[in-house]
Amino acid sequence: MGQRDSTRVAGCELCERDGGLLIASTDKLRIIRADDADHPAFYRVIWTDHVAEWTDLVPADRSLLMQTVAKVETVLREQLHPTKVNLASLGNVVPHLHWHVIARFDWDARWPAPVWAPRAREVSHAEQRLSLPLPELDQAVAQVLKR
Amino acid sequence: MGQRDSTRVAGCELCERDGGLLIASTDKLRIIRADDADHPAFYRVIWTDHVAEWTDLVPADRSLLMQTVAKVETVLREQLHPTKVNLASLGNVVPHLHWHVIARFDWDARWPAPVWAPRAREVSHAEQRLSLPLPELDQAVAQVLKR
Repeated sequence: MGQRDSTRVAGCELCERDGGLLIASTDKLRIIRADDADHPAFYRVIWTDHVAEWTDLVPADRSLLMQTVAKVETVLREQLHPTKVNLASLGNVVPHLHWHVIARFDWDARWPAPVWAPRAREVSHAEQRLSLPLPELDQAVAQVLKR
Repeated sequence: MGQRDSTRVAGCELCERDGGLLIASTDKLRIIRADDADHPAFYRVIWTDHVAEWTDLVPADRSLLMQTVAKVETVLREQLHPTKVNLASLGNVVPHLHWHVIARFDWDARWPAPVWAPRAREVSHAEQRLSLPLPELDQAVAQVLKR
């Protein structure tokens, strides 16, 4: 992120830190995995520049960002066969453009509610229920920026 | 929606009904406004065909859908100057592709949490706090499919 220092905003946690486990990055965006024991296959595509809204981007950048979101979604579908993929760009708390890409399962702790709802049940070792180990999933996700 | 009967799925509420106040439509998609007193400027862009995931669409249709989402977001920003716009495609309960486009305000009933979180405060007559009447907002949103 060193090439774009001028766009950093002091105090913004997504300007100052990766915001999760860094999976892959380009100058324009990065993919991280959130550390969420309840929803282990939870990735975010984070725009490098500090902008709040998706439509703050020019159309070509909007499209680039969404193509990356689509690629992450595709990997999650191919590798995990989730019950559903959830996509969201909220940013109410951290208004630095990022997209959530979350594989959801009918056994997960909040299904069928969104991940921001109260927990519906206790699910221990959710990570172990995935059809492949998280490091292997991370590797597959990392490939999307090389395609 | 009569031209695409073959893609309807019996029992799917978004195949069988509009799913809200119909604002505008094309063969491929429609825009509705949800009836949410806490979040009055809550629109959905619903794909006509019954598909579950955004990446079930071919890339050109994905792009068309997102361009419509962007246009709705732009209208909400221009007309309401919201604190933030929230975008999401979840579909856990109704797995028929639809995008939520929601104008959020720092005074609203769940701010800064997502609209799916428990209510943080009571806000009466939220609709009246918008900077223009909802019917006028609906008209502005309807224009996006004519551009």
